[in-house]
Amino acid sequence: MTAPSEQKSITVIKDARDRNLAEELFAALRARTGDSVGITRASYGEGESAAIDIIEAKAKAFGLTTERDAGANLIVTLEGREPDRPFLACGSHLDSVRQGGNYDGAAGVVAGLAILAGFKEDGFRPRRTVKLYALRGEESARFGTAYMGSNALFGRLQAADLAARDARTGRTLAECMKEVGVDVERVARSEPLLDAKRVGAWIELHIEQGPVLVARDLPIGIVTGIRGNLRHRVVECVGEAGHSGAVPRWLRRDAVFATAELITHLDRHWRTMLERGRDVVVTSGVFGTDPQEHAIARIPGLVRFSFEVRSQSRETLEAFYELFLTECGMIGDERGVEFKLDRRIDSAPATMDPEWIQRLKTAARGLGLPDEDIPSGAGHDAAVFANVGIPSAMIFVRNEQGSHNPNEAMDMGDFLAGIAVMRAALTEAEK
Amino acid sequence: MTAPSEQKSITVIKDARDRNLAEELFAALRARTGDSVGITRASYGEGESAAIDIIEAKAKAFGLTTERDAGANLIVTLEGREPDRPFLACGSHLDSVRQGGNYDGAAGVVAGLAILAGFKEDGFRPRRTVKLYALRGEESARFGTAYMGSNALFGRLQAADLAARDARTGRTLAECMKEVGVDVERVARSEPLLDAKRVGAWIELHIEQGPVLVARDLPIGIVTGIRGNLRHRVVECVGEAGHSGAVPRWLRRDAVFATAELITHLDRHWRTMLERGRDVVVTSGVFGTDPQEHAIARIPGLVRFSFEVRSQSRETLEAFYELFLTECGMIGDERGVEFKLDRRIDSAPATMDPEWIQRLKTAARGLGLPDEDIPSGAGHDAAVFANVGIPSAMIFVRNEQGSHNPNEAMDMGDFLAGIAVMRAALTEAEK
Repeated sequence: MTAPSEQKSITVIKDARDRNLAEELFAALRARTGDSVGITRASYGEGESAAIDIIEAKAKAFGLTTERDAGANLIVTLEGREPDRPFLACGSHLDSVRQGGNYDGAAGVVAGLAILAGFKEDGFRPRRTVKLYALRGEESARFGTAYMGSNALFGRLQAADLAARDARTGRTLAECMKEVGVDVERVARSEPLLDAKRVGAWIELHIEQGPVLVARDLPIGIVTGIRGNLRHRVVECVGEAGHSGAVPRWLRRDAVFATAELITHLDRHWRTMLERGRDVVVTSGVFGTDPQEHAIARIPGLVRFSFEVRSQSRETLEAFYELFLTECGMIGDERGVEFKLDRRIDSAPATMDPEWIQRLKTAARGLGLPDEDIPSGAGHDAAVFANVGIPSAMIFVRNEQGSHNPNEAMDMGDFLAGIAVMRAALTEAEK
Repeated sequence: MTAPSEQKSITVIKDARDRNLAEELFAALRARTGDSVGITRASYGEGESAAIDIIEAKAKAFGLTTERDAGANLIVTLEGREPDRPFLACGSHLDSVRQGGNYDGAAGVVAGLAILAGFKEDGFRPRRTVKLYALRGEESARFGTAYMGSNALFGRLQAADLAARDARTGRTLAECMKEVGVDVERVARSEPLLDAKRVGAWIELHIEQGPVLVARDLPIGIVTGIRGNLRHRVVECVGEAGHSGAVPRWLRRDAVFATAELITHLDRHWRTMLERGRDVVVTSGVFGTDPQEHAIARIPGLVRFSFEVRSQSRETLEAFYELFLTECGMIGDERGVEFKLDRRIDSAPATMDPEWIQRLKTAARGLGLPDEDIPSGAGHDAAVFANVGIPSAMIFVRNEQGSHNPNEAMDMGDFLAGIAVMRAALTEAEK
């Protein structure tokens, strides 16, 4: 191990090396997968495969071992001094939404390659083997399911998932997976393609998809957990339509006023929970009266809306959900409307590994960087790794303009800081 | 004039006569203008003309004088003893929405004919001439403008109104008016077709289009005024879209939560005003996130909604509107959203004539019927007559299932009670 002062000077040297590599790779990715607006790397499709090829070629050029696993993911390996021990995995995904941004996912893969290449060039051989995963199929945009790549790795996809179709082409996930080389038969049997016990840790760098680091003026953040969520895709508030002039308040069963009151009460509960230090966000992203029958002069008899609550804590999710049900019941009774809920959809929260959080924080402080906590509101492959029992951790890099759009804007300096923290933590753990 | 006891026995006789006439006319109207679902009497169209022909033929059979005026409305006249004095007008409209009900409008015309025919048969010659108007073009469904018939009468239509098109056929109001015999050139010049000073009163019986009489178990109600309204067809709440998991509450500019709070605050102001005895109803009939960009996992950055407040009092309308603007400003500031209002559309309230209200109430009490006040939330031709300075009054008849649908349900007994009250009031005024 190097002494702190020595480490910092190495960091500066690596900065230039990392910067050159990152700029080269992001430029190559943009050139190869750019569309007229942003970039498009369809899950289990052409752009994703092209991106994998770019990373693989570069890894080979560094003299690193590469392979494709049964999930058709790229694995770049740097063998450790004790190769029989569970390996450390890092990386992220290479697919994107249509007309998305160049950094969502790819940043984590580029970071991993920079670290492995650096170790190789510097002759640093870690104790445990370190593998970079360039995963496929993280985005839900194409097939309606997220984390297909990591779920397939751990035997967590079902036949129903494989039958999902791309709305544009009508082709199934199974067809598209097969085409890029996935062993679909094993995936369909929910057979793990990777033994979770073989994986000692999962470390993922990713751009933040929210505005918190920008708002708090922090280049990076250490992720404490990944929010899970409870959802209803469609809640119907059923009241009674009527003439807007002719029905007095006491005889109304107005679905808009009822649902507005519900949202306002949920907002109040939300604030109360935040004041008590709970992690929670609440959203009704789709909300509307029925275009078939609504009119300015008609009391709306029907509102359809989506409900979503997210939290890092399963307990908080359930507590908020209880409040939601109670409010639906109470407001329904008071206002003569009925809230009809479709099937509840659960997505479990994931807790990041406290030891790795500590390592990343120590590394950040050692580099003179802030080591602030941040929850991940968006889901990530890291949640899948964590939920199969692999100690997992994430570094978020500041990013303006959100994600899933061509305007996402990651500053190269922030990215290099993220790489430096990850490298330092891995070096310290595997020295 | 007959003594009270004698009057009641005449009422019973007339009941049978009125019932037979009403049943015959409603059956004829339904047979001639029924569609597969309800009845359709398009404004300035075929069904409306057919309905006018049915009423005219029956009026002639009673020996009453009939004519068509420059607005192509039917006028049935019973000359009074002092024909030079301003005449009394009664009636309603004969058009309907598509697949509407048989009573909305027609009830008032049938009631007027029953009264004129009864006077004629009984040899009762009123002091002032009484005219029944079977008006055209009251419904806004076809051309987007209501009260075209009565507005044309008083020179209150503009060239722009005449250029409005039927969405189904693409034909203009001017074309359709011309086809049924309206003197469109005069209407286009906003020239009155009827001198308001020649009209001593307008008395209109109409089914209630709201549920108040049903809820209060009253066969009829005496209308105190017709609610005007202030409207915005489209208010936009502009916030900022974002990832539903990744943006904490303090950085959100959620258009749904902001608009829900606005509606909830307006509801609170509404209740306060009702507690203070003000007449007001508030509706947001059209409400929704943008289908082009909304998603369950996306903080909604845009909501579009309609705003409408109705009241019999201009002052109340303006007071509520002020509260609306204030809330838009305050919630906008607090939540970082902006409420963008389109052009405000005003429709003036109309006050019914106190003397005629009193006459109708006295008549109702004389017949052992309740004489309860009811505001009219829906607009009616009576509002046009009142707003050109003609003393106007309305009787509402209980009606289940609302209006503008084939399920409207007026009980014949309630209708006969309404006719009896109207006849008694006219008899008393014109004895």
